[in-house]
Amino acid sequence: MPAWRPTSHVPADIAPRLLDELPPDAESPVVSFLRRAHARHLVNRDGVVATYIPELASVDPEAFGIVIATVDGAVYEMGDTRKPFTIQSMAKPLTYASILDLYGAAAVRERIGVEPTGDVFNAISLAPATGMPLNPMVNAGAITAVGMVPPARAAGEPGRIDQLLASLGRFAGRRLEVDEAVYRSERDTGHRNRAIANLLRGTGAIDGDPDAVLDAYFRLCAVSVDARDLALIAATLAAGGLHPLTATVAASEDTVRDVLSVMATCGMYDGAGEWLFEVGLPAKSGVSGGILAVLPGQLGIGVWSPRLDGRGNSVRGVAVCRDLARDLDLHLVRGVRPIGAVRTRTSVARRPSKRGRSVPERETLAVEAGRSLVLELQGSIGFVAVETLAREAVIGGERPSAVAIDLRRSTRIDPAVTVLLADLVAGLGTRGAAVAWSAVGGHEAVLDRVDETLAARRLAPPRRFAELDLALEWAEDVVLSRSGASADARPERRFVPLAQHPALRGLDPAAVERLRSALERRDFHPGDALVRHGEPAEELFLVTGGLLSVWVPMGSGDARRLATLDAGDLVGELAFLGREQRTADVRADTEVEAYVLRHEAFEALAAVDPATTTVFLTTLLRIVAGIARRMTDEVVQLAS
Amino acid sequence: MPAWRPTSHVPADIAPRLLDELPPDAESPVVSFLRRAHARHLVNRDGVVATYIPELASVDPEAFGIVIATVDGAVYEMGDTRKPFTIQSMAKPLTYASILDLYGAAAVRERIGVEPTGDVFNAISLAPATGMPLNPMVNAGAITAVGMVPPARAAGEPGRIDQLLASLGRFAGRRLEVDEAVYRSERDTGHRNRAIANLLRGTGAIDGDPDAVLDAYFRLCAVSVDARDLALIAATLAAGGLHPLTATVAASEDTVRDVLSVMATCGMYDGAGEWLFEVGLPAKSGVSGGILAVLPGQLGIGVWSPRLDGRGNSVRGVAVCRDLARDLDLHLVRGVRPIGAVRTRTSVARRPSKRGRSVPERETLAVEAGRSLVLELQGSIGFVAVETLAREAVIGGERPSAVAIDLRRSTRIDPAVTVLLADLVAGLGTRGAAVAWSAVGGHEAVLDRVDETLAARRLAPPRRFAELDLALEWAEDVVLSRSGASADARPERRFVPLAQHPALRGLDPAAVERLRSALERRDFHPGDALVRHGEPAEELFLVTGGLLSVWVPMGSGDARRLATLDAGDLVGELAFLGREQRTADVRADTEVEAYVLRHEAFEALAAVDPATTTVFLTTLLRIVAGIARRMTDEVVQLAS
Repeated sequence: MPAWRPTSHVPADIAPRLLDELPPDAESPVVSFLRRAHARHLVNRDGVVATYIPELASVDPEAFGIVIATVDGAVYEMGDTRKPFTIQSMAKPLTYASILDLYGAAAVRERIGVEPTGDVFNAISLAPATGMPLNPMVNAGAITAVGMVPPARAAGEPGRIDQLLASLGRFAGRRLEVDEAVYRSERDTGHRNRAIANLLRGTGAIDGDPDAVLDAYFRLCAVSVDARDLALIAATLAAGGLHPLTATVAASEDTVRDVLSVMATCGMYDGAGEWLFEVGLPAKSGVSGGILAVLPGQLGIGVWSPRLDGRGNSVRGVAVCRDLARDLDLHLVRGVRPIGAVRTRTSVARRPSKRGRSVPERETLAVEAGRSLVLELQGSIGFVAVETLAREAVIGGERPSAVAIDLRRSTRIDPAVTVLLADLVAGLGTRGAAVAWSAVGGHEAVLDRVDETLAARRLAPPRRFAELDLALEWAEDVVLSRSGASADARPERRFVPLAQHPALRGLDPAAVERLRSALERRDFHPGDALVRHGEPAEELFLVTGGLLSVWVPMGSGDARRLATLDAGDLVGELAFLGREQRTADVRADTEVEAYVLRHEAFEALAAVDPATTTVFLTTLLRIVAGIARRMTDEVVQLAS
Repeated sequence: MPAWRPTSHVPADIAPRLLDELPPDAESPVVSFLRRAHARHLVNRDGVVATYIPELASVDPEAFGIVIATVDGAVYEMGDTRKPFTIQSMAKPLTYASILDLYGAAAVRERIGVEPTGDVFNAISLAPATGMPLNPMVNAGAITAVGMVPPARAAGEPGRIDQLLASLGRFAGRRLEVDEAVYRSERDTGHRNRAIANLLRGTGAIDGDPDAVLDAYFRLCAVSVDARDLALIAATLAAGGLHPLTATVAASEDTVRDVLSVMATCGMYDGAGEWLFEVGLPAKSGVSGGILAVLPGQLGIGVWSPRLDGRGNSVRGVAVCRDLARDLDLHLVRGVRPIGAVRTRTSVARRPSKRGRSVPERETLAVEAGRSLVLELQGSIGFVAVETLAREAVIGGERPSAVAIDLRRSTRIDPAVTVLLADLVAGLGTRGAAVAWSAVGGHEAVLDRVDETLAARRLAPPRRFAELDLALEWAEDVVLSRSGASADARPERRFVPLAQHPALRGLDPAAVERLRSALERRDFHPGDALVRHGEPAEELFLVTGGLLSVWVPMGSGDARRLATLDAGDLVGELAFLGREQRTADVRADTEVEAYVLRHEAFEALAAVDPATTTVFLTTLLRIVAGIARRMTDEVVQLAS
């Protein structure tokens, strides 16, 4: 939610020039934009209020509200954004959405076309050959759509209008009500719509009692909304049917695509080509003076100003939509190249796992780690993303042994690309690569479908890992096994006699014995903590056997594995030397054998045997310097 | 360019089922998709080849090619993608682009409308009231457009067709030629077009000699292209007019928006609503059997298969477009929420500059650095990006003193958001924040316009920095100066007597004197290197005065500032202890005073005075451990 909100409505008597000179008063630039647009068009008093029923004629003709709502729930309001008016024809796209969700596009298209008509808003607009309505945005199409909503079969069951109100409420994100006075007026004066309904009954576009259908239709047109509702309805359409604030699904993605397609050409009482050319946003207007307009994937716009042009569209509403489209470059065909789906492309040579490796393994990896590929994806993974991913996987004709694809920053995998992803995995397999996904949380369903597609081709599914570091470890293991590295060299099998521990390097046997007298052997079981975050650092551990992991607590309460350690490593050297608090947890992954050097014991030794402690400190310094250098390299890499 | 390319065309007699069982043979998933689509529709032999001129009738009816070209220059081909055919009506959107670029949309719309027509491809389609063509995609509109291209005024000047060929060539990315045989046939049989041209001359839609206009029009229809050309023309439209391979501007962005708007409703010989509903891609077809279709911002599609349906569209071409739209979810109104424009949001507390700070400065920053905000943008910065940026700038009602906005990963700033950015800067100023841009390279023109907008409001322009680290340093300076930190504490003013250098901490005066005898004073001027990347590490420097920077060479030949150092710091301690090669350059930024400890001198001292060297090593170890810890923290932060 934006912290910058309009704090007051613009008084109607402030001239735009004056407004532009007001200090911006720390408001969002979006609000500044709306403020200027509101002031610029407020002076426009062209057009007339609809008068075909008294309730519409009695509205304040000066009323003017503009709202922008983003798909992630920011709402910006300016002017009369909370005053009620009736939804009128703006209910039509939502009614169409209801029946598309109920029956699917094919069945609905048997009754209602998708062709625009240049006719005025209350034209009859039936296709000459079939007698079916040309599209769902004209009255005939909307009445037909209402007729397709199943009526209540028994007392107490929801009737057509109840179902439609529930659907509208999901789009608006709140419970909506019928304005009874407007409904009665519509009903009592709706002779032309009565004629249309009877014609439709005659052609078979609607079944049953036309009066019952009409009653629901009149109530639907009389549903009370405000400009904020229009923007949130539009934002829900922009978000593929998911309401930005309630996170309720108001319609399926396919339905929303079909609704927006029709709104693009048939939504305004206007030339079909002209609206798309001039404004380029799928939109729907109503005779109450509202317009809702949609920039798919990004935002919804709601405008309300009751004076209408000769075609029945809000004069100011059209002007605001044109401003937004032209001044802000919001236009359906104004494509923006998506940010690259591949956020980073590297290998375990540049981004090694935290798993500690034996010397032979390290030597092998130093040569072979470039035979891996680590691709971090971001954003929504659709066709273009997979195309990019496929290219990144084979740049320069490389033939990696292992490809890890990280999904932590992927917001969504479009189910439409299932087969493409299976093709990608299969293609990489043919080129000799094993493939793994990491950070798969939330994407399991689509990955399952990829696996099924592969299984149908008798191909093995990719591995899946919960976090990237584990996939990196897997990639290293693949590289190692392809290089014929021996399993005997695996870290968990190694024990280092204390005298050969790297921390004691450079000491003669007598010095080792003197140092050993200051050390205390200690064993740990899997899960035991050697050091704990926040505790004072009093001990240094020389690990002689087993595997350990270093976990750094993250803000969220999670921990991240920073490193793994094994025989020959040290635990706690940084904090021990600085005499500070531990900044991480170190826990045993296996049975662990270690020797502990307490701080007092070391100081006692230094007092009596400075030569030994000098050598020991120099060795420690080299180890720590190596850590500092590795971390520096990692910083340079991560920041580049 | 993709490394995965089709290596052969699909033989016409391979059934699709068989193809699906072929091993994918390490091809791109995009090629796999095209291969399947090609095989699936190859068996469709519906429709008939156009026969109104013999040259069209003589084409191989089985010919079938599909090409996808992305806006960044990847081209995927399947089937007959390099066989020539004539462009026919697919020249119409490009002719329209030419005159839009020449005259602007307003002047062009006085002669040619933008309304779709359900008429067949060679209908006359003039607006009843004005006699002007309904849209530029019908023959009347295209002939009018050709008539608006200025004729040659003197011998040797390019005529209409020369100008149009040059424009088409920019869209295709290669020089195109007229197929003379087809041209002569079109000319000799084009009676209906001759009638249209004379009608247009009568209504005033074209001026001058209709035969001259018609001659250029017939040549234009007879331009020879292949399916790859169509895809690259479409990709150029998808890229807003920039050819993906030649990087030549074929048309302005506004022109391309207008062209695509008209293609969305008028491009296919089809119901205007139906194409948008079923396929949802702006497209244009021709009677030679080609279709070009555009997914704005992402890709272009070219399909060629000569058999036409009753409306004059390629049967297989329409089917392929529908597959792409439906199977791959490519549809104009299928909006994808852009990846967040704000890639990272942090402060100089979490992301300090590399500038070394004095102790009082560090103490102030430790408390106050959170009063800064560092926002790294990514991708194309349009309205939605600025809206997000504005929200991120005020999350939780924070009131930062300094806001640094980094543009390194911003591909483009839409000129349409100039005023919004000025509003943002002004609004942040009202909230008490100074604002700076970093990594401004390439964005200067738009930022100049932001500055102009601010200047008109008598507001100061934001600072600009070439790289983020300098903006971070600026943000720290702002925070420090707002906190009343003293300028006397600035690092460049400080000198540390050798005896008080942190590296000598813990040594008694006698020990300091003994160590001092092993040290050698050395002075450096601005630009001098203390250590050089790749050289052996033999020396440790204790800096007692001046400022230095550590530069790490990057792969590109650039260097990145990794740190700055000043009085009290060490240079070269890591490599010195490990006896390895230098991994960075360290250069003096000001006059620098330092004391050098050579490796041999240290070893000689250790042999005679182990107690002093123990204390010295312990101190060094603490310093290095501090570096390692800082770097570890930075890794955790950067990786999170």
